[in-house]
Amino acid sequence: MSKLRFQISMSLDGYVAGPNQSEENPLGEGGEQLHEWVIALEAWRKPHGLEGGEANASTEVVERSLENIGATVMGRNMFGGEGPWDEHPWDGWWGDDPPFHTPVFIVTHHAREPVVKQGGTTFNFVTDGIESALEQAREAAAGKDVALAGGASVAQQYLKAGLIDELQLNVVPVLLGAGARLFDDLEGVNAELECTNVLDAPGVTHLSYRVLK
Amino acid sequence: MSKLRFQISMSLDGYVAGPNQSEENPLGEGGEQLHEWVIALEAWRKPHGLEGGEANASTEVVERSLENIGATVMGRNMFGGEGPWDEHPWDGWWGDDPPFHTPVFIVTHHAREPVVKQGGTTFNFVTDGIESALEQAREAAAGKDVALAGGASVAQQYLKAGLIDELQLNVVPVLLGAGARLFDDLEGVNAELECTNVLDAPGVTHLSYRVLK
Repeated sequence: MSKLRFQISMSLDGYVAGPNQSEENPLGEGGEQLHEWVIALEAWRKPHGLEGGEANASTEVVERSLENIGATVMGRNMFGGEGPWDEHPWDGWWGDDPPFHTPVFIVTHHAREPVVKQGGTTFNFVTDGIESALEQAREAAAGKDVALAGGASVAQQYLKAGLIDELQLNVVPVLLGAGARLFDDLEGVNAELECTNVLDAPGVTHLSYRVLK
Repeated sequence: MSKLRFQISMSLDGYVAGPNQSEENPLGEGGEQLHEWVIALEAWRKPHGLEGGEANASTEVVERSLENIGATVMGRNMFGGEGPWDEHPWDGWWGDDPPFHTPVFIVTHHAREPVVKQGGTTFNFVTDGIESALEQAREAAAGKDVALAGGASVAQQYLKAGLIDELQLNVVPVLLGAGARLFDDLEGVNAELECTNVLDAPGVTHLSYRVLK
């Protein structure tokens, strides 16, 4: 069966965004440090429509994370906005040619018609929960894997439900001290994992895990 | 100058002990999983007065962590007990021949005469704060390094004060979901580190960092 794969950049002290997140500063204070390693890479810039960039030990990791992905699931906060959609709803953070290039299934409480974007990205809004979103994503992926794009809250729900198959943490050597934690609200989860790969790269350490069922 | 070195075993979700710690279960529920990798090693068993054990990729890491240590600092909880000492105070968790084999400086609010144990361990009780404890430990170490033995609370104080030079996390691939977090109460810390070594070993991944001042 196709796997649910989740990869995220995290500070050494476990934050995926800094404190005081806002619409102007969605990564929170200091949160941009978590993504410097990836923004420098050609392998990331190209699918995001950006020029230039370098290749280093992280290149292979980024390329692998994009391989064999047939659909994407994400939380509403990651798409953008909050609450019920209004008459001319916002189309989210991602612009006209979003970097997903797959059908995307957004877990939300608020129904909305699908939004078709350039480059193969279609945003679908799923109101009956994380399992339904994953099921629809798996069907759309047609045998390929499903990427969980975040954010922290929906990732916690999938982790707690035991639905994530592969977890890759890109650990950035900073302490943010506050912000949004990846591993929060997980009381009772008690999961065991197997470390499948460890790679030190400039400005980041990649830890790959398989979740043991 | 001699360095302050801190190494600790932590679950992937950032806990150094499981939930519901008690005198009978000081590691909390599930917390024993964090130490299975080290208890299996001859390099750990021998200085703790235990027979047997194996050698694997972690052996070098454990041996290195014991090398060139001239003194130890720790928090009161790690020594044992709480509140003022009574007439016949408890001598803590560590038995007649504690595994430190150095002078140990315990950060506490409650003064007490030093306690001399076998094998080179003397417990000294420091009531004027973490900086004083470190200063006394450095003097006792006579040029060697100082080990910070924990627990989480005193480690946070040293981290926040920018006094830790080397941090080694032994990351165990389990999610405990609750318990005592290593990285908590650190608002405003904003520290930058440099990853100096990464090593995957059976049941644990060792991440070594130098704290950049």
